[in-house]
Amino acid sequence: MSSGSGTSGEIKADGSFNRQVNKFTVPFGTLPGELPVEAGRYRLLWSAVCPWAHRSVIVRRILGLEDSISLGTASPMRPNLPRVDWEFSLDEDGVDPILGIRYMSEIYKQTDPEYSGRPTVPVIVDVKENKVVNNDYFKLTNYFETVWAPFHKENAPDLYPENLRDEIDHLNDVIFHDVNNGVYKCGFARSQESYEEAYDALFARLDELEQRLSEKRFLAGDFITDSDVRLYATLIRFDAAYYAAFKTNRNRIVDFPNLWGYLRDLYQTPGFGDTTDFHAIKVHYHLSNHIASDDHKSKNILPKGPDLSGLHTAHNREGLNGMKHKFLIK
Amino acid sequence: MSSGSGTSGEIKADGSFNRQVNKFTVPFGTLPGELPVEAGRYRLLWSAVCPWAHRSVIVRRILGLEDSISLGTASPMRPNLPRVDWEFSLDEDGVDPILGIRYMSEIYKQTDPEYSGRPTVPVIVDVKENKVVNNDYFKLTNYFETVWAPFHKENAPDLYPENLRDEIDHLNDVIFHDVNNGVYKCGFARSQESYEEAYDALFARLDELEQRLSEKRFLAGDFITDSDVRLYATLIRFDAAYYAAFKTNRNRIVDFPNLWGYLRDLYQTPGFGDTTDFHAIKVHYHLSNHIASDDHKSKNILPKGPDLSGLHTAHNREGLNGMKHKFLIK
Repeated sequence: MSSGSGTSGEIKADGSFNRQVNKFTVPFGTLPGELPVEAGRYRLLWSAVCPWAHRSVIVRRILGLEDSISLGTASPMRPNLPRVDWEFSLDEDGVDPILGIRYMSEIYKQTDPEYSGRPTVPVIVDVKENKVVNNDYFKLTNYFETVWAPFHKENAPDLYPENLRDEIDHLNDVIFHDVNNGVYKCGFARSQESYEEAYDALFARLDELEQRLSEKRFLAGDFITDSDVRLYATLIRFDAAYYAAFKTNRNRIVDFPNLWGYLRDLYQTPGFGDTTDFHAIKVHYHLSNHIASDDHKSKNILPKGPDLSGLHTAHNREGLNGMKHKFLIK
Repeated sequence: MSSGSGTSGEIKADGSFNRQVNKFTVPFGTLPGELPVEAGRYRLLWSAVCPWAHRSVIVRRILGLEDSISLGTASPMRPNLPRVDWEFSLDEDGVDPILGIRYMSEIYKQTDPEYSGRPTVPVIVDVKENKVVNNDYFKLTNYFETVWAPFHKENAPDLYPENLRDEIDHLNDVIFHDVNNGVYKCGFARSQESYEEAYDALFARLDELEQRLSEKRFLAGDFITDSDVRLYATLIRFDAAYYAAFKTNRNRIVDFPNLWGYLRDLYQTPGFGDTTDFHAIKVHYHLSNHIASDDHKSKNILPKGPDLSGLHTAHNREGLNGMKHKFLIK
């Protein structure tokens, strides 16, 4: 994170990181004023590095929403223009082929010329209106799981079963504060005290989840739910990026027997491993100016490790739910 | 490592690190022109962070040379004056109590006003003449083990047995190039190619040593020798510092069953763990300007991990030599 750009405006007086609030939070739904659920109308913009965006891409794939909501992909290397942005440099001519934009900020500015926050992913663009309609990473997967049901593939799993929603919402809240955002609170802290506070909360929570996963195959029990998607997005980046770049280094995930088995179980599930791009993740967290300029970047040298081949090894967690399948089919 | 100081003059055209040659290499001995072996005449200067100096302090303690050669300790935080130095800021008034110097460079300059290399540790100062007489980190422990024998404590072990010297010398050479200096070649590389070359050589060598230590309790067999001291000095810093700060991150030492057991075995041996200062090591590699300025330093925040408590756990390696004792007593 370079000074004068990035998240420097999101540091509190005590040196702790205070993530900006999302601006585009109108829900999808059928009520007046809600965003209409319509196949072919929206484009999801993400970058493979971003855990907040990754969760929406995982859910989109698991539910078979790929034909209904198109996907645009920004580069892992973030440019600093006047401030940090996302760039469509992976596309031909460096421009998103549907929206015709070079930088993520363009679509935010087109939508709201006064927009002054960081242009974030995931973001849903209404292709008909050519404007941002939703960047609510916290709720986006829940919309995909519920009001988007008419467009789910046949036999799509239920990632957000009604009888478990209170539990899932509670888990999501806790996982957000201590884990998903917790690693950022460690990495972006500007005082030793706020770093150590975030570090202690993170590892206390991982210890608790490690215990929980000794008895349950997945967070809510026998089946993969929305909470597992959220935890996965952070755990899969942990050893490859956060451990060194964000100094979340009490232990790696491979050191937690249950979390490590759980992570392999998810990684080997369609929708998870096949949407995970370690090269992008490593390039971003270790080399991108946004994260690394005076933090961690070492003369533009990309770490060759860690050895992630263990992700493909047997996890032996089927015994915990006594089943080969991992999804609750509606 | 800041540009314009540190080791910037030690980078070759291909971006690889080429450590400077030591200038003060007259040996200790009894021949004319050699340094006389004399108790009370010399002061060893070190910093607890430095693996090259650590080895001489380990051997000094194991052999009981503490009353014969005094010890001065520089701070883990290295100042950049016109160039990188070591500072005696841990001492009262910030001055070494015997030599009266504030910075390591002073004694080098007093000895040779033309000295233009980095002022390094370990360095042996002749207190009578008030000048540097030896900074040959590669051979210093061998002098302590051989010509300094008249001052060894009673029943001091033989760390450099005559019948094993060829093997030990060969091991030391290999360990120097691929491991001791290998981690620096990774951390100080200025091209992706030279980094990856050093990384591959380092881990190929660690794989080979892992295999060797599956059958032998120590590198040369049943007893601790000079080679073990040298390997220890790098292994003990690996997970706490090099893994993140030097990007030597294929695996940590805890991931190698034999190297990890071997490291615990040594750590729990008097002379090793009791001369190891993890706080100093972490402060130096993560915060000191010399190493970290535009490399790894993140707003002066010291990583709280890793969890090193495993170093105190049982190593169960006694079976490999069938003995409780680890030293060959002369």
